[in-house]
Formats: sequence, structure tokens, C-alpha cells
Amino acid sequence: MSENNQVNMEKIVSLCRRRGFIFPSSDIYGGLSSCWDYGPLGVELKRNVKDAWWKAMVHNRDDVVGLDCSILMHPDVWKASGHVDGFSDPLVDCMSCKMRWRADELKEQVCPSCGGKLSEPRQFNLMFKTFMGPVEESTNIVYLRPETAQGIFVNFENVVNTTRKKLPFGIAQTGKSFRNEITTGNFIFRSREFEQMEMEFFCMPGTDDEWLEYWRNERMNWYLKLGINPESLRFREHTKDELAHYAKGCYDIEFMFPMGWSELEGIANRCDFDLTQHARFSGKSLEYVNNESGEHIVPYVIEPSAGVDRSVLAFLCNAYCEEPDKDEMRTVLKLHPSLAPYKVAILPLSRKENLVKLAKEIHTSVRQQWITGYDDTQSIGRRYRRQDEIGTPYCVTVDFDSLEDKQVTVRERDSMKQIRIPISELVKTLSAKLCGEPFDVLPPGGRCL
Amino acid sequence: MSENNQVNMEKIVSLCRRRGFIFPSSDIYGGLSSCWDYGPLGVELKRNVKDAWWKAMVHNRDDVVGLDCSILMHPDVWKASGHVDGFSDPLVDCMSCKMRWRADELKEQVCPSCGGKLSEPRQFNLMFKTFMGPVEESTNIVYLRPETAQGIFVNFENVVNTTRKKLPFGIAQTGKSFRNEITTGNFIFRSREFEQMEMEFFCMPGTDDEWLEYWRNERMNWYLKLGINPESLRFREHTKDELAHYAKGCYDIEFMFPMGWSELEGIANRCDFDLTQHARFSGKSLEYVNNESGEHIVPYVIEPSAGVDRSVLAFLCNAYCEEPDKDEMRTVLKLHPSLAPYKVAILPLSRKENLVKLAKEIHTSVRQQWITGYDDTQSIGRRYRRQDEIGTPYCVTVDFDSLEDKQVTVRERDSMKQIRIPISELVKTLSAKLCGEPFDVLPPGGRCL
Repeated sequence: MSENNQVNMEKIVSLCRRRGFIFPSSDIYGGLSSCWDYGPLGVELKRNVKDAWWKAMVHNRDDVVGLDCSILMHPDVWKASGHVDGFSDPLVDCMSCKMRWRADELKEQVCPSCGGKLSEPRQFNLMFKTFMGPVEESTNIVYLRPETAQGIFVNFENVVNTTRKKLPFGIAQTGKSFRNEITTGNFIFRSREFEQMEMEFFCMPGTDDEWLEYWRNERMNWYLKLGINPESLRFREHTKDELAHYAKGCYDIEFMFPMGWSELEGIANRCDFDLTQHARFSGKSLEYVNNESGEHIVPYVIEPSAGVDRSVLAFLCNAYCEEPDKDEMRTVLKLHPSLAPYKVAILPLSRKENLVKLAKEIHTSVRQQWITGYDDTQSIGRRYRRQDEIGTPYCVTVDFDSLEDKQVTVRERDSMKQIRIPISELVKTLSAKLCGEPFDVLPPGGRCL
Repeated sequence: MSENNQVNMEKIVSLCRRRGFIFPSSDIYGGLSSCWDYGPLGVELKRNVKDAWWKAMVHNRDDVVGLDCSILMHPDVWKASGHVDGFSDPLVDCMSCKMRWRADELKEQVCPSCGGKLSEPRQFNLMFKTFMGPVEESTNIVYLRPETAQGIFVNFENVVNTTRKKLPFGIAQTGKSFRNEITTGNFIFRSREFEQMEMEFFCMPGTDDEWLEYWRNERMNWYLKLGINPESLRFREHTKDELAHYAKGCYDIEFMFPMGWSELEGIANRCDFDLTQHARFSGKSLEYVNNESGEHIVPYVIEPSAGVDRSVLAFLCNAYCEEPDKDEMRTVLKLHPSLAPYKVAILPLSRKENLVKLAKEIHTSVRQQWITGYDDTQSIGRRYRRQDEIGTPYCVTVDFDSLEDKQVTVRERDSMKQIRIPISELVKTLSAKLCGEPFDVLPPGGRCL
């Protein structure tokens, strides 16, 4: 299985719960099947993942703009996209114990739970349905979106008209989607409510193969740059019979999760299917007009579609380590600094008044730059362990010598090495380290311990 | 009405649509009643509003942590909170034209649309209902949350256990909520899908009045610091008969919207109602234990609850100006720099190759610091107007002299004043201006134009 043979799902779930990354939804009511809440640290980790994606996909590029559509959309959107007719799984019921199963996931034709006889499969639509307005009748049906992508296609014309973007260009969106899955599981890997990061890249027909190639590399590099072990990532090309009828090609980026290789992101060539369908169903032309040549084109679309929750899970699994520290074992989350909930933690050696005063001053100056923890409880060893376990890259210890020599000890999470540096150099030094400067490069007046 | 008598809702809606801030949801299908999509500029403005709130409420404080709960929650949550029984509006139907109205909003007992006779009012629950799992039966009913607050109460114990926070402390959350309103309107002011920014501040009973006072001032100051005109803001204290039965006091922060004074945010003293209810319904103790005294307490709760979309609308209305510029009128969004979608725009005077090369170099260096626009189409006057209209605080013009003197012209949105400064000083100068340095303070080698 995984290269990192210390990690399994139980350990991740346990750490997430114990340290406030992720809790079961509605926990005190016994939880709600396959829905999850992000706690104080989880919400920061998830924000960091989404911000890293937005930065890479929108802010750092000239050819992609953002969008944020509503979750409830006009029901015709899902007729045009094919979801009303085709977004379903085959469902079978056990005649004995009444459990429900996905027919296509069963290896045998008897109930995996009780061995009972199964019904004939019937198609079960995965969209959550609700009613808008005070009357529950079919004309008022709306669906919770099963993907963010369609909101982008529906806004294609609005975006072209307001931004005057020229082909090729992309529209990116993050947000919640909902699928009433028959079977869920593997913690936050597959849940009924989840968050997506999707981008639709519109290009000239004929250039689509190149752009598919471009985007699958870009997206793979994104995970690598954020520290995922290359050994834990691979491409999987969809076989012809896996492809949707309109798709010309599709690659999954797979990660070696504790349960095995599973999809982290799909990069698909959707051709002109979506714009053509929405043009037909809405009666609006969704052609792109080349102002210079006057040519009318229905662009082709390359779609990198990633899951936020899956990415969070992959980053957690990738970061999780257990390793010896003196005569004990420590658990460390070796998260990329840009993803770590806290970048720095300030630890005064004791709660003596003058020490606390200095530590608070340091905390105030550091937190202007980065999200910074402060911990003054229990032994310094225990506190290092706590910060290791939540992935804080650097701890700053303020001790009694600090009052005299105006220096502090900085400890690096991964190597556990320590350096002693002047307080006046602290922010600058942390800044350099967080950007990748080797830990043993010292500021003026600094020394290795 | 508003102090700013140039603004009305039509102008805001039109600007939002024209420049890509906000579109009707599912626009090409004729829109979906009262749902809205944020376009390329709107998504950035909304992100900035939410980030400013998160920074003020979570990152810059020691006593508040974040949370991000699922939208679908266990149905018992809404029994405990009172939403299943009591979250409803009185609905009447017109016997003639079949239109539906909120009985409590009608001034007369005849249909406002056709004058027809109205039915007796009946209670209509505002929660959107759906079914989880493959069968639509009452045991599978789940609701789309009508507020984010309950997710916080339900996680109170999880947060206390994992963060070891001591009273008083708060838990903050932003996210989508859904209310199946009978009447909606005023653009994004009241819609069925909307986004909230809520914080529940848990404190010792007896200190709640002080904390209510504290939080209403903090929240008012947040809007003021982000540039809202003090004349357009006021507190409105709820009268005794407006208060929920459990609430001890509540203040609205109201803004002078184009349609008149309306609620932007509510700050309520909810006493121990929510924790007590959830303890009763879940059977779990939700008491806070003071480790020193051993005392068991059900904390009181102060709740500042703000609407993201309402805040966006208020910031837009507050920023909107029409003013003379030479012999024309210009439309300007005088947004606070921290909220503006682009902080800077780079404008090369022409598309000549050597000029574009320099402009792109400048663009590259500036965008490492801030979200930066680039526009090389049409006259420079038109381009200034476009940036004014979307609220970009500073424009940097690269002209043919720039190739020789290595200087650029910086124009300030609000005053339309211009300065000429060395390219080498550009990032530093913009940084100082964006932090509030007066525009006529010049870097070495700079001059006013």
C-alpha cells in the first residue's frame, strides 16, 4: 500500500478528532452519515488548500478569472447537462435485511451484509431535490448542484461580455456540491456534501489535445509543489469505455491513500458538449466570436476538477509521520508551510510575569505576519509535541536568558534542530525559513544549538 | 433617503451586471428567483469582505477560533433549536390570482396584485427540506441549514475539548445558509440562498451585558474601518416584543440602503438558550467546567450575526459615486483598498512591443504583492474610467518616456491626482499608499504632475 507505512485511516481520523481538525457532523446527535465538520485547525488547513489553488489558478495567471455561483440553480440546467436523465447509480435492495447497495460495486449477487436475495437493480438519481417557494409541486423542484462546473458553462457568455477575455481562457470556481451517494466512506474521501475546485478552460478546437497535456502537468505540479511525495502520485488514463460519450480524453491524478490508489482530481477534455447542450436548451447562442476574423466558434473545454476534502485528506496522509524522538515516539504532520494552520508558535518557558510580557510582545509582532499560536501550558517538551502533531513548522521559545540576551530559540519541526537568534532578527529569519531558506543559515548574531 | 443621493438600486444592479460583479443565477435560463452568481470581480470583492471579517474575528484575536460545518445537519438539531416548530411565516393565498403573500407584510386584506380576496393565513416553514439516502420517507428528511449558528452550538464541546479554550471565548463561522422566503427582493439583500458570517461568544453569566456592549461596538467599528460613512450606519435596539422569548437584548446595525434603513447585522444576547436546548435534546452535557474552581456552568452567548451579501451590497452602495471629470461624468467605486478587487492596474500607453515588454515586467513585479489588472485596450481616458468604475485604487501608466526615464505615472482613483515616480520605487510606494500614506508624499526622485 502506501510508501508511508505508518499511516492508516484510523490514525488520521483519530488525530483529526483529537486535535480539532475534523469532527463528525452533528456529533452530539450521533453524527449525520458521511457529513463532516472542520474544527478550528481543519478550517485553517482547508482555507490554505483552497487559497493555494485560487492563487495558482486565478491570481497568478492572466488567462483565468474566478466565479462563485449559487448552489440552487434553474432545473433546466440539469436537463441540459444530462444530470436529470443520466446522473444515477444502479441500486439494489436486499429482500431480507432491507439494506441498499450499488449493484455495480457488488461482486456477488447476494447481500454482503446478510447473504439475502437482492432485488433487480433500478436507477437512482444522485441529485438532492428540494422545492423552492411555498408549494411542493413538480414545477417548483430545484436540485442542489452535484458539481460546480455547470455554473461556469451557464455564465460563459456573461464572463466573455464583461471581461472581454480572448480564447484561450479559463473560469475557476470553488464551492460546495452535493451527491446523494448510495455508498459513502473512507472518512472525508467520499461524502454526500463536499467541496470542489473546478476550472473550465475554453480553447480553440484543434488545440484541445495540447491544453489537456498542459493542464494535467500543471495540476500534477501543484500537488508536488505543495509537498506531496512523487511516489504517492500517478496519472491514470481513462480507458475508452470509461469515458463519457462526449469526452475525448481524461486523466485522473491518483494518490496512494491508506485504502489504496484513488482519484484526487480528474482532467478531462469535454470538447464542446456543455456549451452546445446549454445553447440548445436555453435557446441562447453560446458561441465565441473572434473579433478579428469574425469567426463564430463553440470552444472546446479542458476541465481540471479537484476535490477540496480529498486534497485535505491527501495532504494529511502525506504529512503524517511517527518517528523516534529521544526515548519516545513523536507524531509529526510534515505539512508544507503554506498549508500549516499555524506557521509559528510562541512558547514562553514559564508563566512568570516578565517572561509572559516579552512572549506576548513577540507574539504580537509575529502574528502581524502569520497565523501564530501561543501556548504556555505544561512542559516545553509536551508543547513541542503538540505543535509537531498539528504541523506548526517553527516554534519560538522564550526563556529566562531571553530577558538578558534579547535572543530566542527557534526550533524546526521536521529536523527538531534549534538555533538561537536575536529577537530583532526573528521576523526576518522566520520569513526566510518559511520561504525555504535552509535552517542552518543564520542571521547576524545567531548560532546553532 | 441615502446621504449619497446619486445611488439607487437600479444603478448598482446595472453596474454589477455590466462589469461582472453579480449576475442573476442561471441567467441564460431566465434566472432563478432571488439567487445570484458572483462574477469575476464580485467573487474577489466577496472574498475580500469575508477575509476582512475572518482576520478581524479570528486571526487577530486570541479568544476566537474558526469552524466550518456542513450545510446538511442531523434533523434533531432543528428540533432543539426551535426551527422545526417555529421558523415560519404566515402565508396567505389570493383566491383570484393565486399569488402568495406574507400576511404580516400586507397593509390591507386584499391581494396587492389583483385586489382579490385572500385566504386565512397558515404557517409556512422556511427551511428547505430534502431527503438523504435513496428513499423519500420522513425518517430520511434533512434540512438545508437556515443559519450557521447551530453548527457552532452543536460543536461547543468538541471545540472546548480540542482547543482547551477558557471562558470567555468565541467560535466563528462563515458559510451558506438557505431560507425559503415567501417574499424576496432588493437585489442581493434578501435571497433564498445567502452567506453568513456568524460568531458565538461564550461568556460567564453576569458578564453578558458587558460583552453585548463590547461586541456591538467592535462590529460597528469594523464597518467604519472599512470605509462606511458613519452617517449611513446606526444602531437599532430591539423592543421587548420583538425579542425572541429567550433573548435578553438585541441590537441591529442598520445601513441606509437605497430602499431605506435596513439590517446589516444583528448582535444578540441569546443567554444560555441554545446550549441548554441542545443538552436536553442530545442528552449530552454541554456545561463548561472551570478547572480551577470545579464549577459547572452553562455559558451565556453573545452572537454578532452578519450577512456577507448584505455587507457586499452595503460596501457597493457606500462606494458608488458619480462626479464630474473635465466635461464628462465619471462613475467611481470608492471602495476601501482592502476590499477592492484589483489593488492596482497596469496600463501601457500603446501596444508597441518595447512598451508592452516593460509594462509586462512591471505587471509581473507588482502582482507578486497584490491582485493586479492589466489593460491595453482603447484610450487611456477610457481605461481610467473602467478602473474607476470597478474601484481600483491606483493605476500605473507606462508611456514612451518610461523607456527613457525609467519612471511611471501613478494615478489615484479618488482624487484623480497623478505622480511620476521611478519604477524602482513603485512597489514600495504603492505599498505605502495602500496602507494609507497621503498621495502627495513622494519617494526619492518622484514629483507631482
